[in-house]
Amino acid sequence: MTRKKLVVQKYGGSSLSSTDQISNIAEKIISKTKQGYMVVVVVSAMGDSTDNLISLASQVNSNANSITREMDILLSTGELVSSTLMTLSLIAKNKKAISLSGVQAGIMTDSVHGSARISDININRIQEELNKDSIVVVAGFQGLNNLGDVTTLGRGGSDTTAVALAVALNAERCEIYTDVEGIYTTDPRITKKARKLDEISFEEMLEMASLGAKMNPRSIELGLVYNMPVYVASSFSIEQGTLIHRSSNMEIRKAVTGIAVDKNVAKITVKGVMDQPGIAAELLKPLSDEGISIDVIVQNTSSDGTTDFTYTVSESNLERAVSLMGSLDGINYKNIESGIDLAKLSIVGTGMENSPGYASKMFSVLSSLNVNIDMITTSEIRITTIINKNDIEKSVVALHDAFELEAP
Amino acid sequence: MTRKKLVVQKYGGSSLSSTDQISNIAEKIISKTKQGYMVVVVVSAMGDSTDNLISLASQVNSNANSITREMDILLSTGELVSSTLMTLSLIAKNKKAISLSGVQAGIMTDSVHGSARISDININRIQEELNKDSIVVVAGFQGLNNLGDVTTLGRGGSDTTAVALAVALNAERCEIYTDVEGIYTTDPRITKKARKLDEISFEEMLEMASLGAKMNPRSIELGLVYNMPVYVASSFSIEQGTLIHRSSNMEIRKAVTGIAVDKNVAKITVKGVMDQPGIAAELLKPLSDEGISIDVIVQNTSSDGTTDFTYTVSESNLERAVSLMGSLDGINYKNIESGIDLAKLSIVGTGMENSPGYASKMFSVLSSLNVNIDMITTSEIRITTIINKNDIEKSVVALHDAFELEAP
Repeated sequence: MTRKKLVVQKYGGSSLSSTDQISNIAEKIISKTKQGYMVVVVVSAMGDSTDNLISLASQVNSNANSITREMDILLSTGELVSSTLMTLSLIAKNKKAISLSGVQAGIMTDSVHGSARISDININRIQEELNKDSIVVVAGFQGLNNLGDVTTLGRGGSDTTAVALAVALNAERCEIYTDVEGIYTTDPRITKKARKLDEISFEEMLEMASLGAKMNPRSIELGLVYNMPVYVASSFSIEQGTLIHRSSNMEIRKAVTGIAVDKNVAKITVKGVMDQPGIAAELLKPLSDEGISIDVIVQNTSSDGTTDFTYTVSESNLERAVSLMGSLDGINYKNIESGIDLAKLSIVGTGMENSPGYASKMFSVLSSLNVNIDMITTSEIRITTIINKNDIEKSVVALHDAFELEAP
Repeated sequence: MTRKKLVVQKYGGSSLSSTDQISNIAEKIISKTKQGYMVVVVVSAMGDSTDNLISLASQVNSNANSITREMDILLSTGELVSSTLMTLSLIAKNKKAISLSGVQAGIMTDSVHGSARISDININRIQEELNKDSIVVVAGFQGLNNLGDVTTLGRGGSDTTAVALAVALNAERCEIYTDVEGIYTTDPRITKKARKLDEISFEEMLEMASLGAKMNPRSIELGLVYNMPVYVASSFSIEQGTLIHRSSNMEIRKAVTGIAVDKNVAKITVKGVMDQPGIAAELLKPLSDEGISIDVIVQNTSSDGTTDFTYTVSESNLERAVSLMGSLDGINYKNIESGIDLAKLSIVGTGMENSPGYASKMFSVLSSLNVNIDMITTSEIRITTIINKNDIEKSVVALHDAFELEAP
């Protein structure tokens, strides 16, 4: 018995913002089955329906976001609507199809409402429906915890649903269809020289997660850990997209693959802190308790036994973070300063690994443009600088040229 | 240990058509808890949200209504939205509250999608939450079948959810809040003399189900069978409503309690059918197979071995019914006639039971108005006539006077 190949396809909300679009996507799904594939489809909520639900909730409760159990049930309805409508559309086009909610698709999670993690997937029901030759349409973004309550997987959760299902079902690959045509060397809105990549490694994609495709890092991590290739392409065109996978020709790759930009950056500096073990953890605990993500962290060397401790948060979290720092108990410091109008500029590439020279090249390009570097942080395959937001455009253009990213 | 009294309250969609209304209803619920009650709330979908979902479905599939499994999942989201918003509103007003979906509330049903019947209720989860002193807000209209699929209970299903939960939880009574102030002696839009009843028996209410409150007969049946008092009142006022219950002073009741009107009536006559056993069942089977309800059935006596067989259906089902009758196989008949512009006029009252005179009084009132009676059918506590739709207003006014319904 030959077994058909299986693919998991995910369609985002911007690809499903009207019933006409749903109907078009249904055609796209059917064309995949005509290529001999079994297809499991994962859908996000239609267009801005999630925002509408959040708005309704805030009208009845100004603090609704913190009542995460109820918000999870509320928000999970958006994907139930889109999954049933997609199924009805497929059936209207004479394809056998069935919708499954997260729990029906066997997606079990932990109990962290609002950003639950998948703990297990029971594929029995999906398998059963696939065996009946049905297209299975799964409501993304949601699962069930062991109390029997609906949970949601947080921002970009449908990507995570899709990659996790692809892994559990041993699919050929996971296809993420979205409103961009793939992964670019840098943001195409900044420079027209930005080039779409045919492929990129999981590690590079993790670093570039904020680039263009706005992919959820968790789904990339899943792909990396389970070696599940993820193909990112446009919902609206048949242009080739970008394959994120375990690269086979890593040695001959370009050193720098892309330039990532994040303009939603603010920094906080706590000056004159006693330089003693454990102080960093103590300073940051109030923020992590409140669920505020901290990105770049820099601690300056000190001469007089005190140190300046600087970190970045997203601009939208700045106000809350500053007020939390103001209420620090039992920590002595001189003062707290904060800065906005910053941006994060990174070059990313597995080829840079353990090779010197890339950092100094980046810094000299920025220096030649008179761009002041505020903070620096690096990983094995990434060099990140914090610079003034106004310097971003010219810096990206110059670095894109300097590292010859336009050439394939 | 004294146990608090428990009440189940149901709020319909017209009471929940905006977040402001939800907030007002939340106050109403809280005022009940201040009277020392534990409260379980059952909500319908907000305003016209169900119609909007149906419209979306028909845009992607013109035949969506027949794909009942998917429609059930789609429509069930409406009640999930209203139940979570109500819960968020209660929490905003500093009350402990939790929303439960149909399945979380333990509501199990058969597998007839679109009009499922409740087979069992497991009250453990509700009881657990009540014990924590929470107001429990249950999504009405929905349950789960033994395949793990969401089902819906059909038109008026939230009323059924409410009465069934009241029975399962052994509540003091079930309160149905809606857009009318209670049950009237007849439709107040027809005569201003219509009087709101303080109480009515289950049996009478079953017969009058189409009157004013537009209550689901299934919920009344449940109340009758399990002797669960059902109180019907307005969501928007504090006016006293109507209590539907097992009457204790049946003997001294008025003979006629109310006059029911249904203007959505059409009739079909099959002429010249062989008058033989089983012919009625054979004639009506194609209709019941298609889910078309048949109301009044009259079979005229025959002289030549054939008979004329007449029945009524709702006007909206007439066309389908006639075409189904046209395809009758193996039954000889002369011809089929159909009639519209009809209405059903009934007088209802347990006091009429086994007492003659009410029918002749009704008929003589109609006769004095020159109203032609097309068909007649009776139950123990109801006399129904089919008359011309244009004669309804004057007939109701005259009967309301003749049976002295205005006086309490």
